[in-house]
Amino acid sequence: MTQPMRIDLNADLGEGFGPWKMGDDLAMLDIVTSASIACGGHAGDSDTMFHTVSAAAKAGVTVGAHPGFEDKKGFGRRRLPLSERDIERLVASQVGALRGIAALAGTHVAYVKPHGALGNWAAEDRAVANAIARAVKAVMPEHPRVLAIAGSELVKAADAHHIVAVCEIFADRGYTAQGGLIPRGQAGDLIHDVPFAIERLAQFIQTGRMPTHDGGEVELRAESICVHGDSAVAVQMAKGVRDGLQQAGVAIQPFCHATE
Amino acid sequence: MTQPMRIDLNADLGEGFGPWKMGDDLAMLDIVTSASIACGGHAGDSDTMFHTVSAAAKAGVTVGAHPGFEDKKGFGRRRLPLSERDIERLVASQVGALRGIAALAGTHVAYVKPHGALGNWAAEDRAVANAIARAVKAVMPEHPRVLAIAGSELVKAADAHHIVAVCEIFADRGYTAQGGLIPRGQAGDLIHDVPFAIERLAQFIQTGRMPTHDGGEVELRAESICVHGDSAVAVQMAKGVRDGLQQAGVAIQPFCHATE
Amino acid sequence: MTQPMRIDLNADLGEGFGPWKMGDDLAMLDIVTSASIACGGHAGDSDTMFHTVSAAAKAGVTVGAHPGFEDKKGFGRRRLPLSERDIERLVASQVGALRGIAALAGTHVAYVKPHGALGNWAAEDRAVANAIARAVKAVMPEHPRVLAIAGSELVKAADAHHIVAVCEIFADRGYTAQGGLIPRGQAGDLIHDVPFAIERLAQFIQTGRMPTHDGGEVELRAESICVHGDSAVAVQMAKGVRDGLQQAGVAIQPFCHATE
Amino acid sequence: MTQPMRIDLNADLGEGFGPWKMGDDLAMLDIVTSASIACGGHAGDSDTMFHTVSAAAKAGVTVGAHPGFEDKKGFGRRRLPLSERDIERLVASQVGALRGIAALAGTHVAYVKPHGALGNWAAEDRAVANAIARAVKAVMPEHPRVLAIAGSELVKAADAHHIVAVCEIFADRGYTAQGGLIPRGQAGDLIHDVPFAIERLAQFIQTGRMPTHDGGEVELRAESICVHGDSAVAVQMAKGVRDGLQQAGVAIQPFCHATE
Repeated sequence: MTQPMRIDLNADLGEGFGPWKMGDDLAMLDIVTSASIACGGHAGDSDTMFHTVSAAAKAGVTVGAHPGFEDKKGFGRRRLPLSERDIERLVASQVGALRGIAALAGTHVAYVKPHGALGNWAAEDRAVANAIARAVKAVMPEHPRVLAIAGSELVKAADAHHIVAVCEIFADRGYTAQGGLIPRGQAGDLIHDVPFAIERLAQFIQTGRMPTHDGGEVELRAESICVHGDSAVAVQMAKGVRDGLQQAGVAIQPFCHATE
Repeated sequence: MTQPMRIDLNADLGEGFGPWKMGDDLAMLDIVTSASIACGGHAGDSDTMFHTVSAAAKAGVTVGAHPGFEDKKGFGRRRLPLSERDIERLVASQVGALRGIAALAGTHVAYVKPHGALGNWAAEDRAVANAIARAVKAVMPEHPRVLAIAGSELVKAADAHHIVAVCEIFADRGYTAQGGLIPRGQAGDLIHDVPFAIERLAQFIQTGRMPTHDGGEVELRAESICVHGDSAVAVQMAKGVRDGLQQAGVAIQPFCHATE
Repeated sequence: MTQPMRIDLNADLGEGFGPWKMGDDLAMLDIVTSASIACGGHAGDSDTMFHTVSAAAKAGVTVGAHPGFEDKKGFGRRRLPLSERDIERLVASQVGALRGIAALAGTHVAYVKPHGALGNWAAEDRAVANAIARAVKAVMPEHPRVLAIAGSELVKAADAHHIVAVCEIFADRGYTAQGGLIPRGQAGDLIHDVPFAIERLAQFIQTGRMPTHDGGEVELRAESICVHGDSAVAVQMAKGVRDGLQQAGVAIQPFCHATE
Repeated sequence: MTQPMRIDLNADLGEGFGPWKMGDDLAMLDIVTSASIACGGHAGDSDTMFHTVSAAAKAGVTVGAHPGFEDKKGFGRRRLPLSERDIERLVASQVGALRGIAALAGTHVAYVKPHGALGNWAAEDRAVANAIARAVKAVMPEHPRVLAIAGSELVKAADAHHIVAVCEIFADRGYTAQGGLIPRGQAGDLIHDVPFAIERLAQFIQTGRMPTHDGGEVELRAESICVHGDSAVAVQMAKGVRDGLQQAGVAIQPFCHATE
């Protein structure tokens, strides 16, 4: 390959609330190139948003909005029975709030990634995905962009709405022969072995084909790898993935710059 | 006077939450030319915001953001001990949220008016007023504009930050010889007599001098009159003021158009 | 019949929040004999609870707790995916909160009626009904009592847990031949004709058999009629039902007294 | 002294919310004899309350209610402008909620300690202290009991309302010659040296006189020592205090048992 290999690393940050913290955001900002920041729905408040956006900007990490159900107690992991119109408005107001904070911090919001139960719903339900695409297109018309699970309905919705879909894969999840995630609880669902995770990701970045649990491989489109930072072990895996990929000759770069 | 007399009428709208309503917004949208819409802090949620912004746009009423303390139980009427930095972020995130909703509704936010205890604080404390001015300037750089109580610290803060301050007077409040509001509970504080209110406002619009409780008058700068819609009586007074001023030859026009 | 005919009338009250009101509670307290009062979950706060409990006690109306999902925006009408354990704790904490307020107001909580989506779930799902029965038995051991939809799973759960189930029918809903409610949207679902509603209820109270939409009748067990107060029309229907039943010789009495 | 020396150790626990944790509750339950558990106001929710109450009961630790301002974002550390009536109701509903949860967990609430800004207010303002005393007396009439800062207005209010006041001192705070806490930011305000803290506390327990920063001592009445668990260092100090006092011959015992 003559073109240099490159990939983005993204993580969910700013997921504290008031006096409470979630994970080690500062450590993760040294690792990732894109930060999906909670917008006050499932987590976050105006101060938490500001501190996280400012820290990301200072670290040169691209800022994304990470809207979720307005359900802090459930951390946005419970699917609430919202209509498509409700979802449009929820996304528009949360992305708008983070854009306001980003403006105050002297930076801006480059993309949107739906969180938790909303993200899972958008991955499998086209109507929900369309609602998110419409909201993103309306609220950030200058460069509407979603960060979406590779192969999901949200990718298709973004394509149909002529907005950019950046696709992500997961550092710690196994893939099926069809390119889907192995459901949690099934053999091969989670990858805890960091060297294996790196090898697998490097192979994908080199070839565009992801090794699957059954020993085969599947073609995937992805410009970003999602890593987690909600525990010390998770941070260590994220760091390992970054270092390992760099040693394999992969450049870790944001899929877009904060100023794009 | 060769120049036609004109004034804006503004009211606080969209102050419901979830299943609860506050006042008769649709009736008020037939009366006012500017609507200050709650942003999810003291009142409002993404659906309420959307419905109110959409109805205002449909009625040709200019949309403003009406941020307040995050205190629905107290309706933003209790002064919370926030720092200047907290206030900046609160205003930035709430105005941002309404901008997101306005974009979804195909319109935009033309100004910011702080609500309740935050508004009163900004009227008398320059540091709080400065914080609001900074947030407004950052979040809506294309045309930063506040709607502020005539003669208040917020007007001075806006001037100092080179952002537009539209000044408002109150249809139902008496004025002191110094141009301040007669404190609630003192003689002349509230005006319930609609014909007298109209006569007084018309005289101010014609001369730039507001009749005061002591029989004199005071020079004021104001481009908008604040009316209330939180009760049937209030709506009736607002309607009376509009009709009376029009009969006195005053044009009721927004201080700026939604598209400016 | 030698035994005097009697029935309880119940309504959901205290469903405001902070500055917002829902319905005309004071008018309803002149009509009903039992008040199911929101506990801060789907509606209500410590002040609203106190004012409603106090007004009920003053009016001689029996106080019940009306717990619901912690979802003010959705007014407890959206089914949240809680586990049975979650539901037990939600009911225990909300009933406990109202008991605290009732103690401060010098009265006490005589029964529990689940609200909205929680009530509907408990009517059809035995596990949810059991969770509520367990919580009620634990929190008010001196006289555990639920107000439940006649024929519902909650009645069976109460029986199985050896706690009292008071059964309710609805003044404004049509019944199927099996004793269930005609689903909303189907013919005969809602009764708007007050004289017909009264005639039907009086016949049920006299005979224990409820006229059904298909012209027949069905045996039901019920000691209370649920009426609504969320609109002026609803209050008028509730008043009509009370007056009509009294004229038909039915005594309107609480199923239990506040001091029982 | 012929009477065995004894003291209670108390800490604030259950101060997480939804997905967020605060401190290491399980470690603290091995150290303290009384746990003041958040009631859903400044922290806590029905599930967090249940898990904390259950863990305390299992560990043989006495359960107390720890009501605070309804301000999770500010963690109850901001003084909200509530009236005395508002405070009564806030305390009654929060203590009631925890009593409901305790009943479900098969235990009960033995005392009330106001949190943060509410606790500080009650320590210095008799009207606020009276409001809390009235609420406690109403809601737990069988054995009303507050845990109050030694020498504070809340102690006097409890005495005047004929309810029990258990007095607490702080393991890590310096005392003035008048028996008050040295204000934060002044010399001697905080004690970080564990051996010195133990020596000082042991001397107080033996003599009833607390060493003061100026080298003297002051008579204090106290049956409990407040320790903190919000950081690993705090947990270590709490453990050190417990071990040190036991080695000095002091029995660590609850001021009352869960079943009293």
